[in-house]
Amino acid sequence: MNEGFPLAPGTVIGILGGGQLGRMLALAAGRLGFDVVILTPELDAPASRVARETLIAPFDDPDALGRLADLCDVITYEFENVPAAAVARLKALGAPVAPNEKTLAVAQDRVAEKTFLNEAGVRTVAFLPVDSAQDAVAAAAQLGAPALMKTRREGYDGKGQKWVEHAAKAGAVFDALGGVPCILEAPADFVRELSVIAARGRDGALAIYPLGENHHEGGILRRTVAPAPASPDLSAQAERIAAQILTRLDYVGVIGIELFELADGRLLANEIAPRVHNTGHWTQDGCEVCQFEQHIRAVAGWPLGPTDARARVEMLNLLGDEADAWAKLASEPETRLHLYGKRQAKPGRKMGHINRLSRL
Amino acid sequence: MNEGFPLAPGTVIGILGGGQLGRMLALAAGRLGFDVVILTPELDAPASRVARETLIAPFDDPDALGRLADLCDVITYEFENVPAAAVARLKALGAPVAPNEKTLAVAQDRVAEKTFLNEAGVRTVAFLPVDSAQDAVAAAAQLGAPALMKTRREGYDGKGQKWVEHAAKAGAVFDALGGVPCILEAPADFVRELSVIAARGRDGALAIYPLGENHHEGGILRRTVAPAPASPDLSAQAERIAAQILTRLDYVGVIGIELFELADGRLLANEIAPRVHNTGHWTQDGCEVCQFEQHIRAVAGWPLGPTDARARVEMLNLLGDEADAWAKLASEPETRLHLYGKRQAKPGRKMGHINRLSRL
Repeated sequence: MNEGFPLAPGTVIGILGGGQLGRMLALAAGRLGFDVVILTPELDAPASRVARETLIAPFDDPDALGRLADLCDVITYEFENVPAAAVARLKALGAPVAPNEKTLAVAQDRVAEKTFLNEAGVRTVAFLPVDSAQDAVAAAAQLGAPALMKTRREGYDGKGQKWVEHAAKAGAVFDALGGVPCILEAPADFVRELSVIAARGRDGALAIYPLGENHHEGGILRRTVAPAPASPDLSAQAERIAAQILTRLDYVGVIGIELFELADGRLLANEIAPRVHNTGHWTQDGCEVCQFEQHIRAVAGWPLGPTDARARVEMLNLLGDEADAWAKLASEPETRLHLYGKRQAKPGRKMGHINRLSRL
Repeated sequence: MNEGFPLAPGTVIGILGGGQLGRMLALAAGRLGFDVVILTPELDAPASRVARETLIAPFDDPDALGRLADLCDVITYEFENVPAAAVARLKALGAPVAPNEKTLAVAQDRVAEKTFLNEAGVRTVAFLPVDSAQDAVAAAAQLGAPALMKTRREGYDGKGQKWVEHAAKAGAVFDALGGVPCILEAPADFVRELSVIAARGRDGALAIYPLGENHHEGGILRRTVAPAPASPDLSAQAERIAAQILTRLDYVGVIGIELFELADGRLLANEIAPRVHNTGHWTQDGCEVCQFEQHIRAVAGWPLGPTDARARVEMLNLLGDEADAWAKLASEPETRLHLYGKRQAKPGRKMGHINRLSRL
């Protein structure tokens, strides 16, 4: 177990989750001389194939968590829906977990998240919690329609959300989402979707990457262009938002913050992801230190690295059978290919991404 | 087993050898979506910790070779002293091995190597084979002293070689090297040690990186500066040498070619290493596609990637306890750190390297 931070090369980083984000974290950790142990319920997971060892068990399996705590000097995660009890258990066993529990509690509940953001001085759309069909109707009456209803927990890539087109139908939408606790959000009248990837070290130092401009299709990220064209004021707003969130959460690691740019130039925060983020993949080829190495540096207690862009990047996700074009993509000199080793290409499944580079 | 080239992501690359070169190859393969299986006699080898699976056995173990051939779609190696019989066995089992047997035969024997180079139209120092103490004296009389005696096989980082200061003592030097077959080389009156890292694809395409300028200490590479200052003529000579060697060997993969620059501007080839090479580590941060990805692309039958430098790099090996300075090195914004995860730092052991970047 851990002899204190910064962790020396050769020590062990645990990752909850075995998907592509875990894989790219493991590759970055390997470059810096760390060993990686993965905990995932999935056999033959993408991250397992580049890690020293994998514990195959549910995330809340007490034996697996005990073993992970024994093996690792620090533990992090690649997705925000890690069971809170699992993190509490790891902490009880003396294993440092980063980012911290407070962050997970905020990130796992959309009402807690937006409440936290507003309290931190970060603007969001107007929202109301919805715990019943009756609440739903009242909330829709108050916020107006259309409004977006989302489950408070879970849900990603556009799942677990529906539009309320007419206030009177809000109860039916609530029922259609399964009757679970929800949030109703006023629509954001945005001109662009942006994101800022940022990191905070154990010493409180911040490292903030240039803005990315994001394009979604069917709720799934399609494309990020970075650095996004942005006025100094817009960049400064994003940096202020990132700094407020990271500092207030006493955060350690990389965070992805999704932003809406309004017509008047103001930024609203939409969502925080307490982990490396799909909209930060451009940093792998666009920056000297990518978000994956940055996260490993942060959780290991290392100094953070530089975040300047050294190229303009268009990041494109390869969804489903789009990754079958690997041979053509590999032949493009300006294209850097990142593939996740997933065995089956289902429609919409993220199989890889490319970073297309051009001069800044 | 292999369904033909190019290999699709998700197929399996085997690597003979588990050291740092294997580790960095495995990391590059992981980025492109390949799985890696390592064969090494070493427990807990650096490469094993970032590979899907490791077969722990001697390199000539028939069962391990059979298993490797079953598991892998192509097999490569990280060091040139792979037993020829092991490669022959893999081939007999139907497993493609790259680079090929001819290359290994040339690279494993210093007399065969220099003979091949001369036949390929590539200049070297004058040399003579030495099979006895008597030969040694005759060779020294013919080439003059001082001259450098090296064992024909094995030997790296300055091991297995001694200077013959006086022709009369050549027999004693031969005996001191163990009485094994040797080569006697005339000294090269060089002004710089350079190297060229190059690749050849399965389609015969070539990709040649800019020259590196190398500085050794005690026979061990200390430092590479790249791209090395070089006239267009010097670069053209290096490219011609690389092209002649790669084409003549029907080579597939990355090769490292060590060169001597003479005072009159001519280049001599000193040695070829049929693998990724320490003097090519600068490409990890100095080029879009590094030598490790390039090698994986080549052996997998993919198109080769670009080799242009995008930064000036000073690569420094971290030998022995120099790697203990990781915390300081990690705090330098211009320094990219690569550590190998070796458990024990012995004097002179390569524990990692850094690439210090500056503008071209």
